[in-house]
Amino acid sequence: MINNLFREDLKEFKAYVPVLNDKKVILNANESFLNLSDNLMDEALDRIKDASFNRYPDGCLDNLTKLYSDFVKVSKNNVMVGNGSDELISIIIYALLNENDSIVTLSPDFSMYKNYALVKGAKVLEYKLDYKFNLDMDRFIEFINENKPKLVFLSNPNNPTGNIIEENQLIKLIEKVNSIVVIDEAYVEFYGKSIIEKIYEYDNLIVLRTSSKALGLAGLRLGFLITGDILYKEVLKAKPPYNVNKISSTVGEVVLENPEIIKDNINKIIESKLYIENNFKNFPKIKSYKSYTNFVLIKYEHIEALYKYLSERDISIRIFNGELQGFARISSGTLEENNMLLKTLKSYFKEMDND
Amino acid sequence: MINNLFREDLKEFKAYVPVLNDKKVILNANESFLNLSDNLMDEALDRIKDASFNRYPDGCLDNLTKLYSDFVKVSKNNVMVGNGSDELISIIIYALLNENDSIVTLSPDFSMYKNYALVKGAKVLEYKLDYKFNLDMDRFIEFINENKPKLVFLSNPNNPTGNIIEENQLIKLIEKVNSIVVIDEAYVEFYGKSIIEKIYEYDNLIVLRTSSKALGLAGLRLGFLITGDILYKEVLKAKPPYNVNKISSTVGEVVLENPEIIKDNINKIIESKLYIENNFKNFPKIKSYKSYTNFVLIKYEHIEALYKYLSERDISIRIFNGELQGFARISSGTLEENNMLLKTLKSYFKEMDND
Repeated sequence: MINNLFREDLKEFKAYVPVLNDKKVILNANESFLNLSDNLMDEALDRIKDASFNRYPDGCLDNLTKLYSDFVKVSKNNVMVGNGSDELISIIIYALLNENDSIVTLSPDFSMYKNYALVKGAKVLEYKLDYKFNLDMDRFIEFINENKPKLVFLSNPNNPTGNIIEENQLIKLIEKVNSIVVIDEAYVEFYGKSIIEKIYEYDNLIVLRTSSKALGLAGLRLGFLITGDILYKEVLKAKPPYNVNKISSTVGEVVLENPEIIKDNINKIIESKLYIENNFKNFPKIKSYKSYTNFVLIKYEHIEALYKYLSERDISIRIFNGELQGFARISSGTLEENNMLLKTLKSYFKEMDND
Repeated sequence: MINNLFREDLKEFKAYVPVLNDKKVILNANESFLNLSDNLMDEALDRIKDASFNRYPDGCLDNLTKLYSDFVKVSKNNVMVGNGSDELISIIIYALLNENDSIVTLSPDFSMYKNYALVKGAKVLEYKLDYKFNLDMDRFIEFINENKPKLVFLSNPNNPTGNIIEENQLIKLIEKVNSIVVIDEAYVEFYGKSIIEKIYEYDNLIVLRTSSKALGLAGLRLGFLITGDILYKEVLKAKPPYNVNKISSTVGEVVLENPEIIKDNINKIIESKLYIENNFKNFPKIKSYKSYTNFVLIKYEHIEALYKYLSERDISIRIFNGELQGFARISSGTLEENNMLLKTLKSYFKEMDND
């Protein structure tokens, strides 16, 4: 009876329910393998101790916003902090879409664009990348202008392919569509080329950033939205006033006060990614894709068997359903974790060959 | 030009933008005046230190959910944790409403029910409490059944009036409407009578709880939604998978492992509220309302002048626009803070009388 009150359009919608990952070697979530250094941890704990847990957070997040805006070289007034960039994706969608408006995303791309758009009651149009995961920008623009979505979402570098779209192509997109273009730069620190400064040139551009990858703070849920003044005001309408808790913002501040450590960590992560990328070439049955991120996408005929084999040996990687069936996304880890992965891959293929 | 893409129905909508409160005596936000004890803080810091900030939170929140479900005596499967109960309000609305569906709230009541419903594009119908802030339940039920909202939101005890609705009246409401009824029990620990166990009897009941008041964790943003199995599954569709960060859940666990401390704190807060409530009676020009919470609503002819006077003396209280113009909501504080408030009130009225 209560079911009569439920939304007809969400009847078939499946909730995204996280499962506990208790593996020893976690290479499935594209996290940084570097936790806070002991020094920074001590500093963070000192400040956490001084925070009054019983008082609401400063809803303005002045310090954190200032530090992040310096880090990415934009004005403080153009930065909005969210409870992870996940929340910012939902805020963009809830603020800007009416039901039956549509969004365009790429396929494959980060799944949450679609997820939140469906919860909003919007239509989702997916544009397929080619077999090499490249995008024909002219055709994409044509597709957008035929369908007139209010929002276009894409991650650059792309998750889960690791591929990138060149800046001149992105500019063409932003200029030639009558839509708001959201570029999710979750992995951009590993690529090095951000489009962030273009928010001052294009009022239909939103850039998303996260602290979960290069900054190594996935556990804290801190995301950043960067956009021009006009769009900022509009997106703000759907922002919950106290969405970022006091401790996450405190720890975020400690990390951002040390940009040289962040840079060091980025270099270490890039090195680790290169290491697995290069070593994957030693496995002729694995096809691996050039990546500009902290993970590598691979293709292998019996990926489920490999996944199971690794899983039984306490290593988790990410496999997919749908059009990416047969692929796996593997995050780079510490040298020890990477070697454990490579050793286990070797023993897997050895056992296969002996069968 | 970009404005053409914006939502017509949100054109006049004003974003809720928090302002920084830098007053010394903060009595405007109904927080607990008690921070973690030194012992609990040490324990919390120890555990925070062991959390890997670089890893995503456990999306299942098993420990925290179990502890909270024990605290409120329901099954773990009926408890959902949110980034503050604010987020849970938005999740309920986004999961259950289509555009042009409607919600019913009371007036006055907590403003975020209306806020999120408008962002959703839903209609908001407000039902006015009488001049004593009481609710005629039969008429209210009539109003609901005429308007057929999908959702009815009300806080009990009521924020900002401090008043309550008796359980038998709430049961009548839940039984006699064809709507989902959300009872926000943010302040219920100070009142003592929760309706939580009724979720097993009524499949159209959702109860909201928070850690921001009795548990003294407003800075962490931890809220709890409690509902039956069927509604739980439906609401889950709009829940972001990793909405609660690792540190907040860790600190929440530390606090909930010590229910006897929570109980002590509740008693101290109730005592503090009684203290200001009783003392307000010494000011004949102030009318104060009986409260079942940690704050007291007062009415006074020149409330803006009083607000300004207190503010200039580093004391913040909450005043309102609209139908509550002329009222103020004052949270109870430490004995020192309460005495500072009362002393300042005395000097204010003395100065007034001398004018």
